[in-house]
Amino acid sequence: MRRRVAFQGEPGAFSQVAARQLAGEDCTPVPTQAFEDVFASVANGKCQWAVIPIENTLHGSIHENYDHLLKYDLVIRGETFVRIVHNLIAPPGVKFSQLRRVFSHIAALNQCRKFFEENPQIEKVPFYDTAGSVKMIMEKRFDDAGAIASASAAEIYGAKILRKSIEDDRQNFTRFFLLEKAKRGTGSPAPEPAKRFKTTIVFTLHNVPGGLFRALSAFALRDINLTKIESRPLRGKPWEYLFYLDFAGHVEDRACRNALNHLAEMADFLRVLGCYPAAR
Amino acid sequence: MRRRVAFQGEPGAFSQVAARQLAGEDCTPVPTQAFEDVFASVANGKCQWAVIPIENTLHGSIHENYDHLLKYDLVIRGETFVRIVHNLIAPPGVKFSQLRRVFSHIAALNQCRKFFEENPQIEKVPFYDTAGSVKMIMEKRFDDAGAIASASAAEIYGAKILRKSIEDDRQNFTRFFLLEKAKRGTGSPAPEPAKRFKTTIVFTLHNVPGGLFRALSAFALRDINLTKIESRPLRGKPWEYLFYLDFAGHVEDRACRNALNHLAEMADFLRVLGCYPAAR
Repeated sequence: MRRRVAFQGEPGAFSQVAARQLAGEDCTPVPTQAFEDVFASVANGKCQWAVIPIENTLHGSIHENYDHLLKYDLVIRGETFVRIVHNLIAPPGVKFSQLRRVFSHIAALNQCRKFFEENPQIEKVPFYDTAGSVKMIMEKRFDDAGAIASASAAEIYGAKILRKSIEDDRQNFTRFFLLEKAKRGTGSPAPEPAKRFKTTIVFTLHNVPGGLFRALSAFALRDINLTKIESRPLRGKPWEYLFYLDFAGHVEDRACRNALNHLAEMADFLRVLGCYPAAR
Repeated sequence: MRRRVAFQGEPGAFSQVAARQLAGEDCTPVPTQAFEDVFASVANGKCQWAVIPIENTLHGSIHENYDHLLKYDLVIRGETFVRIVHNLIAPPGVKFSQLRRVFSHIAALNQCRKFFEENPQIEKVPFYDTAGSVKMIMEKRFDDAGAIASASAAEIYGAKILRKSIEDDRQNFTRFFLLEKAKRGTGSPAPEPAKRFKTTIVFTLHNVPGGLFRALSAFALRDINLTKIESRPLRGKPWEYLFYLDFAGHVEDRACRNALNHLAEMADFLRVLGCYPAAR
């Protein structure tokens, strides 16, 4: 049976592009409305996998998903990067010169400022979703409207790409996680010496001066490289924080195991959210 | 002449409550539409002060404002905490039993789940602003509609509070900054031994393993307490970060001066965003 992989957005969303990279062609993508639905579909068994965006190089972390990682008992099994390429898309037969309106998610419209400055005859129209805007212009068969979305969205809805890559900044990447249900006994993938792994953890500290410094020492003193730190508010304890940390290494590497034991001495709470092959 | 203090939202917004706490009764509050407008009004001289929310104990940092702190040449002059108390408000004469709809910002509606569960006869209606929803129900003189907002909003628009403090979680505080234009020569306030100060900085590091650990050592080895760390993506350098740090102490304290000099040795970029009396 084909595995079902949940993602947020309409078919053709960048999350679906990531799902294909992470889970292969051989599974069924399942679109959902909200990020929390993606987590819930795996928690309640409707899907085997979930794909979520976790950070973007222009906008930063998707903090809501950090909160869901804590709330749901899922584990991270993989990561991937997707370059966010915005294409100008229109129904077949509609020419560039006919366009007077372009629909897309507000973030995508804002990432194509130069295009709109150079084409003042075209009005920006905010829409709830990038891929959804392609779906809509195809359904309504507008002859004066386009959309901004992924190449995959154009393909799925049978629309045409009029201009490729109209985004202002090409350094626009989103990092995605592949998640599955945590199972007893089947922990992390076996370490393979030839492969680079990453591990993501979340913890809280006793609220003492120098606490974070000592927590990071568990890694620094063992030459373990941190690749990301994120803090989130701790519910019920105003002005205290949860820390999410990504580090290079496999949880079963000796140095990583020791670092986690060392950190556990200082932490009020510590959970490994996943160990997975590093992207690229 | 009365000083003008810019804030985001309608009159009666929690930001205006914070502005009063930070700037006193003796200034003119100037409402603006977007956070960036608040920064711009001080940068272009239309207002002397700005008040912005920077973090909330339930939702975390207001990341957009961290980005504006970097972009605009303003300095932090004060901080304050406001407890977010949501009140059920209606036009005078409208009784609780008449209510069928309640308007407010979606975040405020979501923070009063219990109230809506216990009162299924009342529909939640999302609106663009908490205080704005009070203004609107007063203008339209609805006899079946209420709003959720601050006590200050009820007072400003002449509405009545039907139920006080209907939020689910009372540990809901927002931290606000008072900002003014950076001026040459007039740096930080003079240190006062009896007062507790805080300093906020932003920096980037050479991308080397253990970099953040060494950066924090500049503070930990001098017993300087960090109260907050926040990371934001560094534009143009995918997967590298800016770090925002709050620490207890005055920039002119000897230990703090040394820590900043020490950090400067390791940093590609370092800026003091402000030194201000700690709230409470």
